[in-house]
Amino acid sequence: MHDATNRGAEAASWIDRLAKISEPGPGVTRMPFSEEHRRVLPLLTELMQAAGLDVTMDAAGTLIGRRDGPAGAPVLLMGSHQDSVREGGAYDGIMGIVLPALALGALRERPLPFAVELLAFADEEGARFPTALMGPRALAGSFDMAALDLTDADGISLRRAMTDFGLDPDALPGLRRDPAGIMGWIECHIEQGPVLEAEGEALGVVTAICGIERHSARLTGEAAHAGTVPMALRRDALAGAAELVTAVEARARATEGLLATVGALRVQPGVVNAVPGAVDLTVEIRAPADALREAAGAELTAEARRIAGARGLGLEMSRTYAQPATPCDPGLQDALEAAIRATGGAGRRLASGATHDSSAMADLCPVAMLFLACRDGISHNPAEYCPPEVMGRAVAALVEFLARLAPRRG
Amino acid sequence: MHDATNRGAEAASWIDRLAKISEPGPGVTRMPFSEEHRRVLPLLTELMQAAGLDVTMDAAGTLIGRRDGPAGAPVLLMGSHQDSVREGGAYDGIMGIVLPALALGALRERPLPFAVELLAFADEEGARFPTALMGPRALAGSFDMAALDLTDADGISLRRAMTDFGLDPDALPGLRRDPAGIMGWIECHIEQGPVLEAEGEALGVVTAICGIERHSARLTGEAAHAGTVPMALRRDALAGAAELVTAVEARARATEGLLATVGALRVQPGVVNAVPGAVDLTVEIRAPADALREAAGAELTAEARRIAGARGLGLEMSRTYAQPATPCDPGLQDALEAAIRATGGAGRRLASGATHDSSAMADLCPVAMLFLACRDGISHNPAEYCPPEVMGRAVAALVEFLARLAPRRG
Repeated sequence: MHDATNRGAEAASWIDRLAKISEPGPGVTRMPFSEEHRRVLPLLTELMQAAGLDVTMDAAGTLIGRRDGPAGAPVLLMGSHQDSVREGGAYDGIMGIVLPALALGALRERPLPFAVELLAFADEEGARFPTALMGPRALAGSFDMAALDLTDADGISLRRAMTDFGLDPDALPGLRRDPAGIMGWIECHIEQGPVLEAEGEALGVVTAICGIERHSARLTGEAAHAGTVPMALRRDALAGAAELVTAVEARARATEGLLATVGALRVQPGVVNAVPGAVDLTVEIRAPADALREAAGAELTAEARRIAGARGLGLEMSRTYAQPATPCDPGLQDALEAAIRATGGAGRRLASGATHDSSAMADLCPVAMLFLACRDGISHNPAEYCPPEVMGRAVAALVEFLARLAPRRG
Repeated sequence: MHDATNRGAEAASWIDRLAKISEPGPGVTRMPFSEEHRRVLPLLTELMQAAGLDVTMDAAGTLIGRRDGPAGAPVLLMGSHQDSVREGGAYDGIMGIVLPALALGALRERPLPFAVELLAFADEEGARFPTALMGPRALAGSFDMAALDLTDADGISLRRAMTDFGLDPDALPGLRRDPAGIMGWIECHIEQGPVLEAEGEALGVVTAICGIERHSARLTGEAAHAGTVPMALRRDALAGAAELVTAVEARARATEGLLATVGALRVQPGVVNAVPGAVDLTVEIRAPADALREAAGAELTAEARRIAGARGLGLEMSRTYAQPATPCDPGLQDALEAAIRATGGAGRRLASGATHDSSAMADLCPVAMLFLACRDGISHNPAEYCPPEVMGRAVAALVEFLARLAPRRG
């Protein structure tokens, strides 16, 4: 525990130094290929070099710290992203670079039967350009070069931003890795939810990154004077929408692992003395298993039809977005759980509701994630906080994990 | 029926001519003390004079057509308002001036044992100034002179608008009538709802003008990432609001005569991937009996508290507005019903959910209202429509009503 305490404090110190490299304003704002990105690189390089890693940057702007293994040995990839959302927190992403660096530093003098590369991706959040995950996609060969023409709010294209940053976007296709030599990808990240904290656990093992689907629904009734139309003659779009909101919540509450949310709902005309004539709403469904999610989507669409039919409402409903789940590798999950247990934790398994670099890395190799408890489940907010003792436990678990891991080819 | 057909066509012709006096744009827009109000007066004067009435205007801008009775006889007041909402219909208000004029015209040569005054009030809708019903309030002695300082969207005060119109606002207190000489007030109006049309009835007798109360509620939960917070740990303000919307509808459906509506509902933050943190909504309740309305208001407030408590949501809820019901005079209701039955109708009784000039006239004398079926219940809309045959039946019923009415002092 003394080691864990020291390592937690060391992690917190690095996090503090890194968080200062931000646009002015509350929290952390560090966009990809920005002045802040440029300024964070020397500090990340210092972090990686302190762990004994050789530091380079690839054409996607990914800072890579490498530790060689025996000749011909496979490589384990670790890391996360350097960027933040606007006015985000100090932990999301960059903590996943700090913690493996400290673990590798602790193992600096100890031979490992594999190579390790620690990756600091440029852009996971997609907060500057309407695209994200370029770094891992380039490695997996799934990057769409057309995205280089997308522009930020100032009209600067991704290609231009990268060129100004000193990168050669045309070299991106050459970054593709051969899966054969890769053991897997390990990412540490704050949970961004309240589960671990509520259970008093510092660390958790991610079972899958949830798939997501989004539906857009418009219920159309008849706007009417709230004083002149009897209840029996109304076609109240909001009363129908309320039934659907209740059904969405009930469906998810009744199904382990399923999340379903009506996040947006707008009423027309939306005045105190008018029966609502139309309601637009969104339904978002997330689940670690695609079959679970798709069954819920189909059932809720049928339920919306039933509600509309019973009330004489019009319904337009369509699935506007779908992203399959990313299952984490069972062997790597077991190895992370064993490492957590060996260092005093329970090894709680949980799904990730949010997308991560791991989502894209899964196209290249087996992936696994270590989640860290965060305060009040808050993320993407200046109040985001992960206690030093939790980070210390994570470094201890990573050391244990790396020390136990047997070389395996992807 | 031949007479009724002719009178319906005549009414429709007057309505058409009057509707042309409007601001440009869809439907009818005729604000009080406006150029359009000024231009409608000669036509209303022609209408009243054709019925044999002597026409004057009082200090509130009410155009008055009078037919004397025997010396010392009481007076029956009839009429409605000349003004419209913005982009409103051709019937709301002004039809209540046209129909009694045609009925009085039909009775022009016939002696009646009472005097009649047909009143065309300037402002019932309150569409220009944040006040309304000045004309009837002046007669009832309930007009608040402070309202003269209220201004329209151009910053013109009511006092200034009236003065520019040639009126003397300081003479308003002198308009107060002595109830002793007044038999009552009869107003014809389109139903503005679908009840009569749905039952195949042209005419209905209003039992009461509903009282109204409005509540404003804010449910506060916790905004959260829709992917990272399990269902059991959420405090979803919209899910709570949906329960309340359902309860409001159910309460009104279960209670004869009660109307309850959630018309406005706003969600924060209101995005597809966030659990709603707060919802603001309105609850409006109308009933012909105040006790019924107040019981529903208290029960729904208690239900909102129960829902908030069960879900760990914060609740701020308050009654922001209350207006008591106006019961219609039983004797005048019976007389209207008898007149409708004598001319081929059923004499359906129904409550009015909307406010009318009658609401203010009730402070002066017994009131009663004749409702006319309108197409699809539509009002306050350019599509507002009352078929000529319905108007013809109303004129026939009014003729019958006036011919049968015995003088009675208020």
